[in-house]
Amino acid sequence: MNVVPGFAVGLDFGTGSVRALVVRLSDGAEVGTGVAPYAHGEGGVILSAHDPHFARQHPADYLEGAATATAGALAAARDADPGFSPDLVRGLGVDTTGSTPLPVDAAGAALALGPAFADHPAALAWLWKDHTSAREAERVTHLARDLAPQALAGVGGVYSSEWYWAKLLRCAETAPGVMAAAHDWVEIADWLPATFAGREAEGPRGICASGHKLMYHPERGWPPRALLAALHPELERIGERLRTREVLDGARAVGTLTPEWASRLGLPPGAAVATGAFDAHLGAVGAGVREGTLVKVMGTSTCDLMVARPAADFPHIPGLCGVVPGSVLPGLLGLEAGQSAVGDLFAWWSRVCGADLPALEREAAALAPGESGLLALDWNNGNRTVLVDTRLSGLLLGQTLQTRPHEVYRALVEATAFGARVIVERLEEYGVAVERVVAAGGIAERSPLVMQTYADVLGRPVFVSRSSQTSALGAAVAAAVAAGAYPTFEAAQDAMCGVRGAPYRPSPGAARVYDDLYGLYRELHDAFGRPDAPTPNLAHVMKRLLGVQGRARAVSA
Amino acid sequence: MNVVPGFAVGLDFGTGSVRALVVRLSDGAEVGTGVAPYAHGEGGVILSAHDPHFARQHPADYLEGAATATAGALAAARDADPGFSPDLVRGLGVDTTGSTPLPVDAAGAALALGPAFADHPAALAWLWKDHTSAREAERVTHLARDLAPQALAGVGGVYSSEWYWAKLLRCAETAPGVMAAAHDWVEIADWLPATFAGREAEGPRGICASGHKLMYHPERGWPPRALLAALHPELERIGERLRTREVLDGARAVGTLTPEWASRLGLPPGAAVATGAFDAHLGAVGAGVREGTLVKVMGTSTCDLMVARPAADFPHIPGLCGVVPGSVLPGLLGLEAGQSAVGDLFAWWSRVCGADLPALEREAAALAPGESGLLALDWNNGNRTVLVDTRLSGLLLGQTLQTRPHEVYRALVEATAFGARVIVERLEEYGVAVERVVAAGGIAERSPLVMQTYADVLGRPVFVSRSSQTSALGAAVAAAVAAGAYPTFEAAQDAMCGVRGAPYRPSPGAARVYDDLYGLYRELHDAFGRPDAPTPNLAHVMKRLLGVQGRARAVSA
Repeated sequence: MNVVPGFAVGLDFGTGSVRALVVRLSDGAEVGTGVAPYAHGEGGVILSAHDPHFARQHPADYLEGAATATAGALAAARDADPGFSPDLVRGLGVDTTGSTPLPVDAAGAALALGPAFADHPAALAWLWKDHTSAREAERVTHLARDLAPQALAGVGGVYSSEWYWAKLLRCAETAPGVMAAAHDWVEIADWLPATFAGREAEGPRGICASGHKLMYHPERGWPPRALLAALHPELERIGERLRTREVLDGARAVGTLTPEWASRLGLPPGAAVATGAFDAHLGAVGAGVREGTLVKVMGTSTCDLMVARPAADFPHIPGLCGVVPGSVLPGLLGLEAGQSAVGDLFAWWSRVCGADLPALEREAAALAPGESGLLALDWNNGNRTVLVDTRLSGLLLGQTLQTRPHEVYRALVEATAFGARVIVERLEEYGVAVERVVAAGGIAERSPLVMQTYADVLGRPVFVSRSSQTSALGAAVAAAVAAGAYPTFEAAQDAMCGVRGAPYRPSPGAARVYDDLYGLYRELHDAFGRPDAPTPNLAHVMKRLLGVQGRARAVSA
Repeated sequence: MNVVPGFAVGLDFGTGSVRALVVRLSDGAEVGTGVAPYAHGEGGVILSAHDPHFARQHPADYLEGAATATAGALAAARDADPGFSPDLVRGLGVDTTGSTPLPVDAAGAALALGPAFADHPAALAWLWKDHTSAREAERVTHLARDLAPQALAGVGGVYSSEWYWAKLLRCAETAPGVMAAAHDWVEIADWLPATFAGREAEGPRGICASGHKLMYHPERGWPPRALLAALHPELERIGERLRTREVLDGARAVGTLTPEWASRLGLPPGAAVATGAFDAHLGAVGAGVREGTLVKVMGTSTCDLMVARPAADFPHIPGLCGVVPGSVLPGLLGLEAGQSAVGDLFAWWSRVCGADLPALEREAAALAPGESGLLALDWNNGNRTVLVDTRLSGLLLGQTLQTRPHEVYRALVEATAFGARVIVERLEEYGVAVERVVAAGGIAERSPLVMQTYADVLGRPVFVSRSSQTSALGAAVAAAVAAGAYPTFEAAQDAMCGVRGAPYRPSPGAARVYDDLYGLYRELHDAFGRPDAPTPNLAHVMKRLLGVQGRARAVSA
């Protein structure tokens, strides 16, 4: 057997920091990690005192963070693996948050890095969780229904305020000076690899961001001029720019590291630079995504990814963030869904009740399913799938004067699991079988309670990805393919990725209780989330929760 | 002008302690107070580890507490007023929680004070907030609809698990030995004055407890034998015993202090003992209740009292706890409503979020109406009026990842105010005009936020009762009348009661915002609380809250 020599580096640009991971190509061993927090804002996010929906990032943080994190990873790899040397790095892969668009000048440089717009909030990167563009998103949806129905269906039928065109429209209307100065707007998933490869002026795009957020489709192309013109002349202008750009999938590299960036990152010049993609998509790669496997990348929010074989009659699945050819694995459809707050929801409750998460987790784990008597909706940050509505909010129901903080915590964990089940049911309703779940991310590793709850609620085995740094590992897989170390993503995954130990399996007793609670969750979900849904009378909800609680207490007593 | 000489003592048996108040008859000056916490249980309430609905009290705590508290009050009065001497006390009045029934033997002694049932939980006093009898209450309601519709309508149309017959039925079915040994069951509001006057074996009753909780009516008498027999033979037996009892209103005294109790309490033998009533009812007296005035006695829960002129066509008001002739002021109908958790709700949230109430209050007061974006239902302890349903629970809606503890606190304050408005609207819907509100109790004095919110939500001036000890003062008013010091309650009130300073007045801007939020509250109230109500689609609720929040922020920015 030929051992594949050398290493790859995955750079994972997260919400609060950038992480660099050095991976051995032969077996996926993670031999060095470096992390650099972003310098600006609170935890790397620039906020507004006046608008809770505002969330931006400074592009300098990405570039400086990449250098710092990579230096750290290389040093760690040198310490850990005597066989390692930076010269042996054959490729660099990049994953980022998204949709996180950034306005750039004609040279492809970020406006925020130049003097004219150094302090302008609209010139920063508009972070995925910036929700300032809710009205604009509604306008995109409204117009696209008439003017670009196929393009809209390709991103799930509702355009989100988290996405590219809504953010550009908001900028055009509220900061026209920035918009006028922007030669182009680039997702950072595309801007960073292009920059490392010295192609930022050419502006090549990846299929992942373009397909899932910009309404690009390999056959249909970019969204029609008529739609963009109807939204705003500046969007029409940017659309025309996009039509000049090359769009790549993971099977094609962006290029090779420039000498300048090679020096800045401490990597060999000429190392391959893979096409960038979103953290969740490359996280799914790193977690070993395959047909029939749902990968849940669980962090502050959750991204759900699947792949499916393309077919002429492949259905539009309403509410999915997108179905994009090649966005996860080349040659297969990438299916993206997600939940807008998971870890963020748990952290919020920890802040509100003043108890730390490990303590909440420990106490909540001692409760039986249903014992809290509580039911929550997981919408504190809106609902991404299947309602695609940021103007939703949280709901907690069933409180008594005896309700304690860890019971609320458990209800929030359960609510995110019910939200996950809505997504799984939507996929299966449209013929995409979900046979097993692989969870990745911090929560998957840290919280047996969350994992067991998901197994019980979803009624499926839930595996945990072997890597703790799945997105960065996926970026390294992409780098391995870009460097020609493996012929396909699947071959690289077989060598470099896996799961750890036995899965969490559903417990029949818990699954029964959760089937009941899920029925109530669906009633609240539809009553508060679907203007089109018939609303049943809800007067039985509190009484049924008390009934479930009574039975749970009787069993656990 | 003749100055009325002498003093009266009011004994207020609360949920956690008994309070004695020495009041000067001429002007209502409160010259001495003593408080004695109950010795048993947690904060005076005996709980069950297995059942959160269980709440009992030990009758010894009442008797010992009365002696201790009275001694303290007399000592304080001696210090404060050189004109005071215990010999000048002309009467004693008693108010208590309720419905708090106690099983007694043929001598009128509490079973729990004898050796046979000393440790038996069913032989204790069944505290008002004991909710173990939910199913039994449903059975009373169900049977009474057929067998005693008028009696049921007199207590609001739904029999509560907090009330006498439900508790007795629960005891008959779960502790038949205690039930068999009980010669009678007496509300502590009746048992304590009878005991002080040496008439406990005769078992005279007051109209207040009998009318509001036992379904007694001066014209129709006790609930029909057919109903009680259908519920349980033991209830039939107790009902027959009741038919032998005298029923008094406040215009008639129970008797005079026995030498033994005079000695134990340090009061003159022969002092008048007034007919007992519930704390809220005598609180309303102490707060100066009159036609057109709603008195809200605001503590852990809230009791709402009004009086109205009797009329042949006076309507049944669905959901009121009762309309009872003479239960507040002799000669007028006493109307009782209430909210099951007010102070308890605020204290619960303080425990959950770990912030103390003054801090929550301070931060919440800095918010504009609607600024929290939150909406709550105040049902953590069920809903007393107008839904009369203990099997309801809390609801909080509108949370985002930015929601902070003081915002939830404010939403809970607002929720109790909305609950109060439901009651006011129900009264007015049936022709009982509510012209002004007088609030009494700790919250009324401590919380300008709560008072201003109530004024804004109710759209009426809200006064605060002058006395901090309104129930005990009302008991002293009853004692003054029982002793013949004043010819009527009204005359005694004019001399002894009042409000403090200017009222809280509604602010037009806040009232407009709260009108909007109240509309949403009513939708949730009906959707979750009324099985018979048509349910509107609720998908606008979260969006409308976000709209209200956005406008509130724009105004306050």
